[in-house]
Amino acid sequence: MAAEQDPEARAAARPLLTDLYQATMALGYWRAGRARDAAEFELFFRRCPFGGAFALAAGLRDCVRFLRAFRLRDADVQFLASVLPPDTDPAFFEHLRALDCSEVTVRALPEGSLAFPGVPLLQVSGPLLVVQLLETPLLCLVSYASLVATNAARLRLIAGPEKRLLEMGLRRAQGPDGGLTASTYSYLGGFDSSSNVLAGQLRGVPVAGTLAHSFVTSFSGSEVPPDPMLAPAAGEGPGVDLAAKAQVWLEQVCAHLGLGVQEPHPGERAAFVAYALAFPRAFQGLLDTYSVWRSGLPNFLAVALALGELGYRAVGVRLDSGDLLQQAQEIRKVFRAAAAQFQVPWLESVLIVVSNNIDEEALARLAQELVAVGGQPRMKLTEDPEKQTLPGSKAAFRLLGSDGSPLMDMLQLAEEPVPQAGQELRVWPPGAQEPCTVRPAQLCEPLPSLAESRALAQLSLSRLSPEHRRLRSPAQYQVVLSERLQALVNSLCAGQSP
Amino acid sequence: MAAEQDPEARAAARPLLTDLYQATMALGYWRAGRARDAAEFELFFRRCPFGGAFALAAGLRDCVRFLRAFRLRDADVQFLASVLPPDTDPAFFEHLRALDCSEVTVRALPEGSLAFPGVPLLQVSGPLLVVQLLETPLLCLVSYASLVATNAARLRLIAGPEKRLLEMGLRRAQGPDGGLTASTYSYLGGFDSSSNVLAGQLRGVPVAGTLAHSFVTSFSGSEVPPDPMLAPAAGEGPGVDLAAKAQVWLEQVCAHLGLGVQEPHPGERAAFVAYALAFPRAFQGLLDTYSVWRSGLPNFLAVALALGELGYRAVGVRLDSGDLLQQAQEIRKVFRAAAAQFQVPWLESVLIVVSNNIDEEALARLAQELVAVGGQPRMKLTEDPEKQTLPGSKAAFRLLGSDGSPLMDMLQLAEEPVPQAGQELRVWPPGAQEPCTVRPAQLCEPLPSLAESRALAQLSLSRLSPEHRRLRSPAQYQVVLSERLQALVNSLCAGQSP
Repeated sequence: MAAEQDPEARAAARPLLTDLYQATMALGYWRAGRARDAAEFELFFRRCPFGGAFALAAGLRDCVRFLRAFRLRDADVQFLASVLPPDTDPAFFEHLRALDCSEVTVRALPEGSLAFPGVPLLQVSGPLLVVQLLETPLLCLVSYASLVATNAARLRLIAGPEKRLLEMGLRRAQGPDGGLTASTYSYLGGFDSSSNVLAGQLRGVPVAGTLAHSFVTSFSGSEVPPDPMLAPAAGEGPGVDLAAKAQVWLEQVCAHLGLGVQEPHPGERAAFVAYALAFPRAFQGLLDTYSVWRSGLPNFLAVALALGELGYRAVGVRLDSGDLLQQAQEIRKVFRAAAAQFQVPWLESVLIVVSNNIDEEALARLAQELVAVGGQPRMKLTEDPEKQTLPGSKAAFRLLGSDGSPLMDMLQLAEEPVPQAGQELRVWPPGAQEPCTVRPAQLCEPLPSLAESRALAQLSLSRLSPEHRRLRSPAQYQVVLSERLQALVNSLCAGQSP
Repeated sequence: MAAEQDPEARAAARPLLTDLYQATMALGYWRAGRARDAAEFELFFRRCPFGGAFALAAGLRDCVRFLRAFRLRDADVQFLASVLPPDTDPAFFEHLRALDCSEVTVRALPEGSLAFPGVPLLQVSGPLLVVQLLETPLLCLVSYASLVATNAARLRLIAGPEKRLLEMGLRRAQGPDGGLTASTYSYLGGFDSSSNVLAGQLRGVPVAGTLAHSFVTSFSGSEVPPDPMLAPAAGEGPGVDLAAKAQVWLEQVCAHLGLGVQEPHPGERAAFVAYALAFPRAFQGLLDTYSVWRSGLPNFLAVALALGELGYRAVGVRLDSGDLLQQAQEIRKVFRAAAAQFQVPWLESVLIVVSNNIDEEALARLAQELVAVGGQPRMKLTEDPEKQTLPGSKAAFRLLGSDGSPLMDMLQLAEEPVPQAGQELRVWPPGAQEPCTVRPAQLCEPLPSLAESRALAQLSLSRLSPEHRRLRSPAQYQVVLSERLQALVNSLCAGQSP
């Protein structure tokens, strides 16, 4: 982490990141004498995204940071004054200047926990005017973060716990912060690392990355490095000209693979040597710039074997095009044969990393075969988290079965007594004619670190029963109402007000 | 605009908003003695998004701002040192500390101009190491901006030049900056305004908005405003109790509509009165909180007619659910009948605004009938702007027909002489066996303001011929190669290097 007081603060949303109708409504409330009325809003999903039966709650840390810092500066108030009617009472703007969130209360699902349709991820209560101004930025901070984390969790479920998942979607992100948010919450949802350096600096996400095709194509093979010598890994003995050593190995590799020694591209080999000189302990070859079989693979083997002579182990190779699975399987065979041929057993198990628009389907196919997978999360915005249907201030409880897996969530009115484990409860599934009975447990935790939230996400997912965890056509997880909440709904449907 | 030195600067990307592989490659180049080699990269779309035949170039202003401010601070360099190998030569980090973009040159399509597949939106040249670090942030800044602007331009083409289009997607955006970028470039692409206040403050986008359902539901009807009196619009004469006046009008309206006076929800009416007291010159009713026909519409009419008595004109109504087109048509009929009944001709033409997930198809249906439309841009990320195929540093020229509409774009090598209007050129469509001949013109403009870019976008679109402007199954706009560029491609395909 960088040596800043609060490095994440720079990524926070600002008070005017809100819809103008929130400000006009604020003026309406103020004019009606209702600015300080008690109010609450809730944020939840109506449907789980991506056709699954669960979502992960995320974004709470950003909300808390935003709320702590919430203050309208003079420039903010002046801007609002410029877009509201010119005869607006100046006392309204004085009210805005004095606003903060000291009277706002937030209750939330713990960062990284499971969320189900209708269960509030966030409940925000406080004076009506300020709560209204907070609604849009909090929605903006929670909705996308939860969606990204859910997507990442699905990819993690497909990949299994052992595969390494690297997110590298920054260049296609929705602007700078869209990328920062996506990288952060992909990590929370289960990815191992991100290529996004800023996410590392500001959020502590592990960063990873090696080289791209442009690095390979930038070398012609005629370049002369200022210092071609590489010292042995153990640090003792004389340095070796790595390019010359790789050239010697190339002849053996080509003979082994049945290739002419002129076939592998000399620029690609020069690029690999240059990269290996800079990263002798982390050498990775990008194989598909020219031809995987006639150039990338023999060049990688030549440089990796030259490094190996000096005591360095190449980390792996990456494929970024074509049939990733088939190529990876064949490359593994080549590695095994070359390991035997050249008596370097470590070569058998170097990583094969694949990338290039890996979606759930492609990942499922790959996950059976490969050791490391670099995916790019793909987002579909299908949920609708902003509309409220259930009345009143509510509390949510997660009810666990005897094996510890969540059975259902129950919503009740905030003033109802807290349910106790082992106690039988009558609850109402939505739309049901009759209540059913269950036994509850509950969950409440303080705001953890990003890495802790990531661990909680995996723990929560591991406890979800297989039929709810299934990504295609899952059994729908039930969210039910308490008797009193159901009665309130019934009374509201029958009449106009409670 | 707020009284800041450069209010947009706060929205700018930061130097570490890049992929780690750009930094590792930078180290590789530096170790190979190539940090200051001359380099160039280009950014273009491979396919036009959304199935159309054009895109709008956007994001250049953000790129220029980013490049001007580009400097790695101590904390940035320290963070990079923490994720690169511990034995990295300290001289590399000294090199990073001294980097800026003073030797970087950017050529670009003017902000808001038409872009076609393969034609570079941006060409960045300069020292290899710094150009590599810039690639990801510039892609991030241009790709999404251009996509949003293109989407907005398509919706504008569907709506026609007269309809008002309001963007209000912030709450579903990809994080805070995703929302800011979307609002800014929706405006550039042709929308009239945004609900996003920050886009107004930082980017000068016109902001608009009134009230949401939560405002309506927050009133029960029993509230007593501290000051229920409203002065006449002309500013002379005594004030009137607006709520009482609206109650009188309600009886007439209900009689006219054949409704019982108890049917319209009193809380909704109280909310309308509260809003009208705050915005007497900008009163708009949100009709669908309870029932459009039995509550929203009569309550709106009662308050609008009460305001009218005081000399104020209601601005309009908004619908946010249901069959928007059918309801809007029927509401227009009610307005006409009420205008005749109560002898208030202005009521005939108050705005009917609709919102709720309006995509291209829904907009096409609505655009035939309505006066104002509030849409939410929907994004599909289908383009692939990052991979390069054509070799060499290139220049692009737009060739216009005799009627001024673009015929095709031509790519040539940067060192080729600039084509002249009226001069016959031999050019190569991609994949063609034979060249064809055309006559060129050209386009080059300095960086304009956001509003000027928005005007340029509309002007550019108006010049595009109808078969290219068509949104479904358009004729593909051709991008062709000059003879010399084609020859270079041929030579590269034949051999390994030029």
